[in-house]
Amino acid sequence: MRDVYVIGVGMTKFGNFPIKPGVKEMGEEACFKAMKDANVYPKDIEAGYCGVVAGAGGAQGPLAGNLAMKQVGVVGVPITRCENGCASSSTAFREAWISVAAGLYDVVLVLGIEKMTGLPTREMLKAMTQGSDLEIEGFMGMTFPGVFGMIANRHMKEYGTTREQMAMVSVKNHHNATMNPHAHYPKEVSLEKVLKSPMIAYPLGLLDCCPISDGAAAAVIASRDVAKKFTDTPIKILAAVQKSGTFLEKLNATTFDITVRTAKEAYRMAKVEPKDIDLAEVHDCFTIAEILHNEDLGFFKKGEGGKAVEEGETQINAKVSINPSGGLLAKGHPVGATGVAQICELVWQLRGEAGARQVDGAQIGLAHCMGNFSHGDGGTCNVTILER
Amino acid sequence: MRDVYVIGVGMTKFGNFPIKPGVKEMGEEACFKAMKDANVYPKDIEAGYCGVVAGAGGAQGPLAGNLAMKQVGVVGVPITRCENGCASSSTAFREAWISVAAGLYDVVLVLGIEKMTGLPTREMLKAMTQGSDLEIEGFMGMTFPGVFGMIANRHMKEYGTTREQMAMVSVKNHHNATMNPHAHYPKEVSLEKVLKSPMIAYPLGLLDCCPISDGAAAAVIASRDVAKKFTDTPIKILAAVQKSGTFLEKLNATTFDITVRTAKEAYRMAKVEPKDIDLAEVHDCFTIAEILHNEDLGFFKKGEGGKAVEEGETQINAKVSINPSGGLLAKGHPVGATGVAQICELVWQLRGEAGARQVDGAQIGLAHCMGNFSHGDGGTCNVTILER
Repeated sequence: MRDVYVIGVGMTKFGNFPIKPGVKEMGEEACFKAMKDANVYPKDIEAGYCGVVAGAGGAQGPLAGNLAMKQVGVVGVPITRCENGCASSSTAFREAWISVAAGLYDVVLVLGIEKMTGLPTREMLKAMTQGSDLEIEGFMGMTFPGVFGMIANRHMKEYGTTREQMAMVSVKNHHNATMNPHAHYPKEVSLEKVLKSPMIAYPLGLLDCCPISDGAAAAVIASRDVAKKFTDTPIKILAAVQKSGTFLEKLNATTFDITVRTAKEAYRMAKVEPKDIDLAEVHDCFTIAEILHNEDLGFFKKGEGGKAVEEGETQINAKVSINPSGGLLAKGHPVGATGVAQICELVWQLRGEAGARQVDGAQIGLAHCMGNFSHGDGGTCNVTILER
Repeated sequence: MRDVYVIGVGMTKFGNFPIKPGVKEMGEEACFKAMKDANVYPKDIEAGYCGVVAGAGGAQGPLAGNLAMKQVGVVGVPITRCENGCASSSTAFREAWISVAAGLYDVVLVLGIEKMTGLPTREMLKAMTQGSDLEIEGFMGMTFPGVFGMIANRHMKEYGTTREQMAMVSVKNHHNATMNPHAHYPKEVSLEKVLKSPMIAYPLGLLDCCPISDGAAAAVIASRDVAKKFTDTPIKILAAVQKSGTFLEKLNATTFDITVRTAKEAYRMAKVEPKDIDLAEVHDCFTIAEILHNEDLGFFKKGEGGKAVEEGETQINAKVSINPSGGLLAKGHPVGATGVAQICELVWQLRGEAGARQVDGAQIGLAHCMGNFSHGDGGTCNVTILER
């Protein structure tokens, strides 16, 4: 299989846009920016992959990729929608990587997109519940805040993790977001404000939870020889690994075995270790999630994720810069767009183009994205490692 | 890229199962049969791809592949949902092919699945309309019967195609289905009955339209060397090509440019010509569609598809055996399952295991699947060519 590079990225500002821009306009903006960044024309694009979750609630799901790519002149080529819940566009990115690594294509466009606002809450909940086993968890009302609330309780009990430590994740990520022009909530929040935010699922308050957002993100990838024709700063894909859950109802709720397995293979494929990672965009759908993932990704020992946040080790330019973009918590989480938005952040950081939130001398970045949740385990986990 | 083979297939009976079996049970049956047919164990499967459209209406979409594959012990490996409307599982099949051709995996399981009955009609229509440009066609009420009704009218006007010729497609496919134990409607229908069936969208009556069905179909594919370990009758994938529409509002409604383009590349990749095809499963969502596709696939000249049916040239063992399985019209059309179900039929035919509907000495088979429809063109078209 051939080496593959990211040669261009682009995204919309994430936000709350219940009417306009719609799916087409957001996708157009992200694709246009990524193609311009990559210096490619529509005729250069040989295939498209789109990650989008919609389908319930009336937002345009099935044809989102085709309609958005049409807006920038990418028509006729194979366009494939990938859907793996919140990991949809990291899955799409990986499928695109496989197609280029295989030698089937040289230049491929990947889009992640989601239109979440503007739906009645009931429809939104119904759509979100689709990411669980409907016959069991769905009917039990096991929504994601409930699941992560239980995980947080267990982490507190087993390792002494505190509500304050979780809240500090939100404070940090909102601070990072103030330096990100694409963020949904680029606002500082105080520890007190997070702790006093309305309770959603104990111990998780509103500001411990990522928002419902709209947005799109795109990337252009290319084979090595072709990448060099278009850009002087290709970013190498060292690893793109995906796993699914094992559906083993486990007694240990404080670790995601799926993340451990996926990361292990990704580190092996990339020939790097956790200590080599300069920055990581991790799937902080809830504050406890970031703490958990940082442990499962090998950045900190199990149980020490809370303390690491408290000691500032996850801030920009500290031990490992976690979610310099603001993460799902503050950059926002338009589910289908998140995977590629993480790739955008890695690319900007590795190129040294991240402005005030730049991680100094970033060489290697990791993106961790999870989708769906069932029987005590994730449905899908993607770990992607990029190198400048 | 490496040569890839189909080493096992299996499917459920298609039908109307509003309560049970559910998504998990149908998927389990199809996967189990395909894995048994391929002689593989769960540990042999390195990745899974699932084509499923659901998501609207409450049927399990996002996790369908994971939940179904879990039932047969396929867990932990990357499982990717592909969704391209009615071409979802032909897209999934192609993505699986790319991953094996790339050298990333040796053995991959592909599932197509759909649970369509049991939904209120309003929900079903809403889900189906998602396959069009919602802001334009969706709001205009451009449902698929309407689109194909217009196409039929134009074909009649331009080429003198008759309602009787269209009805003969339904008569033929229902006859073929009587020999297929997996068919939803294994019943003979008379020409008169088709012509007198309730009008849906002139000139298409109820029996000119495919039914709403439930069902699942699965296939196991493998690289050449590995395929030989598991089976003595590997079926070679000569071509797996996908295209999207060009969104060019065209004046000529009597041809799908997307099919012409996809087929052309598939024939080139497979190094065969239309005359070499012994049998084809084509996307006969409506009777006029089969006539149109037979022309666009190069089996007959443009405008002569109606006459060809009338003269019996598309019957089993005639010039080219079209939809020996009964096709979407009579085998049924559980949308996400259709692409892989077509592959099942090709494999059985090419192995000489198709019983009473066997195409004598079948060497090369073609599957044609289309998904979504927008701006006068298909959203997705897949053409797969297999050889025994």
